[in-house]
Amino acid sequence: MSDAVPDVARAEIVGAVRRALAKHGYARLTTKKVAAESEKSEAFFFYHYDTKDDLVVAFLDWATERSAERLAAIDSDDPVTRLFVACDVLVGDYEDEDDRGINVAMMELLSHAPHDEAFHDRLSAYKRSVIDELAAIVSLGIESGAFRDVDPEATAAYLLMTADGTTGAVMALGMTDVGEKVRERLFDYLTSTVLADGVSPPAAFA
Amino acid sequence: MSDAVPDVARAEIVGAVRRALAKHGYARLTTKKVAAESEKSEAFFFYHYDTKDDLVVAFLDWATERSAERLAAIDSDDPVTRLFVACDVLVGDYEDEDDRGINVAMMELLSHAPHDEAFHDRLSAYKRSVIDELAAIVSLGIESGAFRDVDPEATAAYLLMTADGTTGAVMALGMTDVGEKVRERLFDYLTSTVLADGVSPPAAFA
Repeated sequence: MSDAVPDVARAEIVGAVRRALAKHGYARLTTKKVAAESEKSEAFFFYHYDTKDDLVVAFLDWATERSAERLAAIDSDDPVTRLFVACDVLVGDYEDEDDRGINVAMMELLSHAPHDEAFHDRLSAYKRSVIDELAAIVSLGIESGAFRDVDPEATAAYLLMTADGTTGAVMALGMTDVGEKVRERLFDYLTSTVLADGVSPPAAFA
Repeated sequence: MSDAVPDVARAEIVGAVRRALAKHGYARLTTKKVAAESEKSEAFFFYHYDTKDDLVVAFLDWATERSAERLAAIDSDDPVTRLFVACDVLVGDYEDEDDRGINVAMMELLSHAPHDEAFHDRLSAYKRSVIDELAAIVSLGIESGAFRDVDPEATAAYLLMTADGTTGAVMALGMTDVGEKVRERLFDYLTSTVLADGVSPPAAFA
């Protein structure tokens, strides 16, 4: 009955699933452990969602929306700023417990996608939507003359893969030195390969 | 008693763990499911390894060695060829069931690293060793004049993150169009940013 879950209950539930996933991972998740991260009883969770996987799908839907909203909310009309900030958001911040927990949980759910159609379909749609969003920014930059005439889709896919790759080494293993180097190389790539000659990166990324 | 496991038994066991991980994932793995992928009995597995996690650690050690051997076995003294082939090996081949199963299993185990010290330590050492291996190739290329004067460690980390990122979208979700685009961008990056002016990519990657 997840379609009919009221917004307030859904926010409470998703917050608890998020905290429980960060603490225990998906493999060891139980509805009991989710309820332990909330003021509500286990019965409250079962009233709204039939199974543990329904809870996890609600989390996935929320995490997907969160990411889409963060990309859409980038406060600039300038494609240069939008692209740098979008890459920064996608890499995430190791010091931010939410970013860390959500990215590692999404990676764990990705590893279950070959065995789980609901996860597979949602995660595929999510990856596709992020690539589309990045490709739209790249297309805007090409039209405005701020970017070179790169392939928007291929560039978007390439940038997303690099950001995705940091989830394992940086977020899950804590190799923050690797994270810093990759972030620097990634911004250098944008400057040297995507920005048109004479266009500078935003001040915050220079 | 995993230190004392004879090579033949170890190979049998690791093969079964690998097939069981590809089929069921780590979360749903049991020693019974591992034994079902082998001619041996469950007792055989318990004789050599006490727990499911000991079996998985044996798999991790094997997968790490496999990767190191594949990188070390690249049949060329030319740093240009070595770098392109190494990146190709790290991205892996979606059509190869072993590559797919192993990469997705490693990603799942990465997601457990925050909760599991044995996984964390092995996976950190593994990532570090791949970065070192790539950085050594980059340093060789700089010395020989075939590469630009890039930062070997940062370049190595950046290349590995891009390769790692494809595990989710390509290997787990089957987005093979994304895989092809990223591979093309990655080789283009090597050509435009790492190779010195006038140095061409190997024929197989041009």
